[in-house]
Amino acid sequence: MKILVINAGSSSLKYQLIDMDGEKMLCKGNCERIGLDGGIFTHKTADGRELHKDVDMPDHTAAFTQVKDALLDPEKGVIKHLSEVSAIGHRVVQGGAIFHQSCLVDDKVIADIESLIPLAPLHNGAHVQGIKACRNLFGEEVPEAVVFDTSFHATMPPKAYMYNVPYEYYEKYAVRRYGAHGTSHRYVSARCAELMGRDIKDLKIITCHLGNGSSITAVDGGKVIDTSMGLTPLDGFMMGGRTGTLDPSVVTFIMEKEQLSPAEMDQIMNKKSGLLGISGVSSDDRDVTAARKAGNERAKLAHDILEYQISKFIGGYMVALGGCDAMVFTAGVGENQWMHRWEIGKYLEFLGVKLDEKLNEETILGKEGKISTPDSKIQVYVIPTNEELVIARDTKALVEGQ
Amino acid sequence: MKILVINAGSSSLKYQLIDMDGEKMLCKGNCERIGLDGGIFTHKTADGRELHKDVDMPDHTAAFTQVKDALLDPEKGVIKHLSEVSAIGHRVVQGGAIFHQSCLVDDKVIADIESLIPLAPLHNGAHVQGIKACRNLFGEEVPEAVVFDTSFHATMPPKAYMYNVPYEYYEKYAVRRYGAHGTSHRYVSARCAELMGRDIKDLKIITCHLGNGSSITAVDGGKVIDTSMGLTPLDGFMMGGRTGTLDPSVVTFIMEKEQLSPAEMDQIMNKKSGLLGISGVSSDDRDVTAARKAGNERAKLAHDILEYQISKFIGGYMVALGGCDAMVFTAGVGENQWMHRWEIGKYLEFLGVKLDEKLNEETILGKEGKISTPDSKIQVYVIPTNEELVIARDTKALVEGQ
Repeated sequence: MKILVINAGSSSLKYQLIDMDGEKMLCKGNCERIGLDGGIFTHKTADGRELHKDVDMPDHTAAFTQVKDALLDPEKGVIKHLSEVSAIGHRVVQGGAIFHQSCLVDDKVIADIESLIPLAPLHNGAHVQGIKACRNLFGEEVPEAVVFDTSFHATMPPKAYMYNVPYEYYEKYAVRRYGAHGTSHRYVSARCAELMGRDIKDLKIITCHLGNGSSITAVDGGKVIDTSMGLTPLDGFMMGGRTGTLDPSVVTFIMEKEQLSPAEMDQIMNKKSGLLGISGVSSDDRDVTAARKAGNERAKLAHDILEYQISKFIGGYMVALGGCDAMVFTAGVGENQWMHRWEIGKYLEFLGVKLDEKLNEETILGKEGKISTPDSKIQVYVIPTNEELVIARDTKALVEGQ
Repeated sequence: MKILVINAGSSSLKYQLIDMDGEKMLCKGNCERIGLDGGIFTHKTADGRELHKDVDMPDHTAAFTQVKDALLDPEKGVIKHLSEVSAIGHRVVQGGAIFHQSCLVDDKVIADIESLIPLAPLHNGAHVQGIKACRNLFGEEVPEAVVFDTSFHATMPPKAYMYNVPYEYYEKYAVRRYGAHGTSHRYVSARCAELMGRDIKDLKIITCHLGNGSSITAVDGGKVIDTSMGLTPLDGFMMGGRTGTLDPSVVTFIMEKEQLSPAEMDQIMNKKSGLLGISGVSSDDRDVTAARKAGNERAKLAHDILEYQISKFIGGYMVALGGCDAMVFTAGVGENQWMHRWEIGKYLEFLGVKLDEKLNEETILGKEGKISTPDSKIQVYVIPTNEELVIARDTKALVEGQ
């Protein structure tokens, strides 16, 4: 069974075709600048054949046409007939309080995803476009499933998801913590239990998805009890360009001083803050690392803040869990920036975390493994995330369960 | 030596006269509704004599006239001549990045406190009015000192006080964490070391000032390394009417939906949120407790959130400190609401906190003492705060050091 996994943004569309026999990725690619001039289409197969096209794609249907052509391409393709695609799985960022698990797509599901656009204006609208374009091209006979970034977090108790604002905003606008990166946290926490040879039901795990956007999740017996991202992916701790949680009076103070609208302030908090805002260098941690090595004081400060805030969050989640058996680092920064893992490890030493210096420095660039010492009370792992595989697995299970 | 301690707000003025021989409070009182109709003046001596007047006080000088008359009153007074007041100590909320310790008042100090009004619009202006009115009435020959709520927090490192917003706002507007309740955290942390019979230099202490406004501070060797209040006293965790820290997108989301200005949003986050906002009952925890006992579900939720957020903050500060020797509860809620202390103790049990059920329930209503068991790894105390005494001590030291 071959499953096409789709991650549709407003102007981009990423895809992977996965053969579920052996869970092998056959090819992956990206449509960039959909609806804009200067569209770019890239495609790469597992055995290294590549396709690169400069082609304008006025809408998501046009983008899917490129995907289809590439999949079927006599030289660069991986299938002979479109019918070889058994099902399609879509990533959806916001499932709100409606979707607590993955499901097959029907008209009601599409309408429900559309109803959540106010909670994820940049994402959910694009997902619906992706789903509809897919139907146009593959026909309704190819089942589609949706897998939500939020659904792994649906088990959070109210004490973790309520914000301390008047209750009426929860009732009127569904203002609450939803979390994000759920598919990643779900994959790495399950994989962590597997690597430990333990049943996840018996484990307290803290998963740190550290990328351009970052979140930390407390997973108790396989269920999320708290997570750092909130109503939107702005909550939590320092990210590439995002603030994370803030003294809310900082928000209104700056808005007033700079005469900013809520939308303008959102832009600043989402794009010009975090690592970039403090360092003044970049939202990419590799650039900040280079600047720091060159002696940039603000780059050093940005790293100090990042490591400190992550460590405090982990401390808070240990309290939420009442202990901790294992921690996982994943995503771009978590998988590769070993110096942050090292500093975080030092903060947590008094709680029983002990990292192996060599293992920590070596476990980068897609490697998976344990980086704590044998006598560390809390086991620490680096696990490259694989959200596409989770989406494909969920889609397969839903299609087979029909 | 008798010292008058003043806490001047925009429409109120609280005072205490303290005899530094034995550090005894001689009398205390309050001028309410200064500059408004329906002024109220109350005065009470340590031996129980009371004065209550309905009297309009158009400004702070008028209020000080009431104070002076009461102090000298043949029946309800405690001194014969005004010259018995050796010095006056003022509480000042915001010392910004200018004041790192208490100091004697001169024209430059007044101008500096005025320059910080943008960071504490409700407080610093009133303090200056209080200082000036005091000078008018007592004359410049009576030395005045100022003691800042922020100065105990001045030792925080940048990684704790910087917010993840563009650095320019720190440079342009001094946007950073300042903290609050510093005088209280300073008093109870020092007192905790005293009760433990240890040098504070060797201790890691977490102090929880839980009142209508609340903050938690991490004190390492007598120096603050982190605190929960921020640019303003809105930051941190759930308070009576305040949100504490928030997903900043919650701020802009609600502003947009409800068409609120920054000032209007500030009002909601400062007055209608927190315990009140979630419970719908009251910002006073005693009312919320009563409602909860009567079966109110949202009152229960508010308490769950309160205890959970405080516990997570403590977990984060343990990481900041790299361990913890003692915890202190103080202020109205911290000194009296023993059920919260109990629940927080349960959250922290895995870290070595063990409360004595009986001691915990009995140590209320102004009692001071240890509430942890002898085998608790972390010692837990209830210490009634005494900010006025700290102000009087600082004032005495400054006057004597002249």
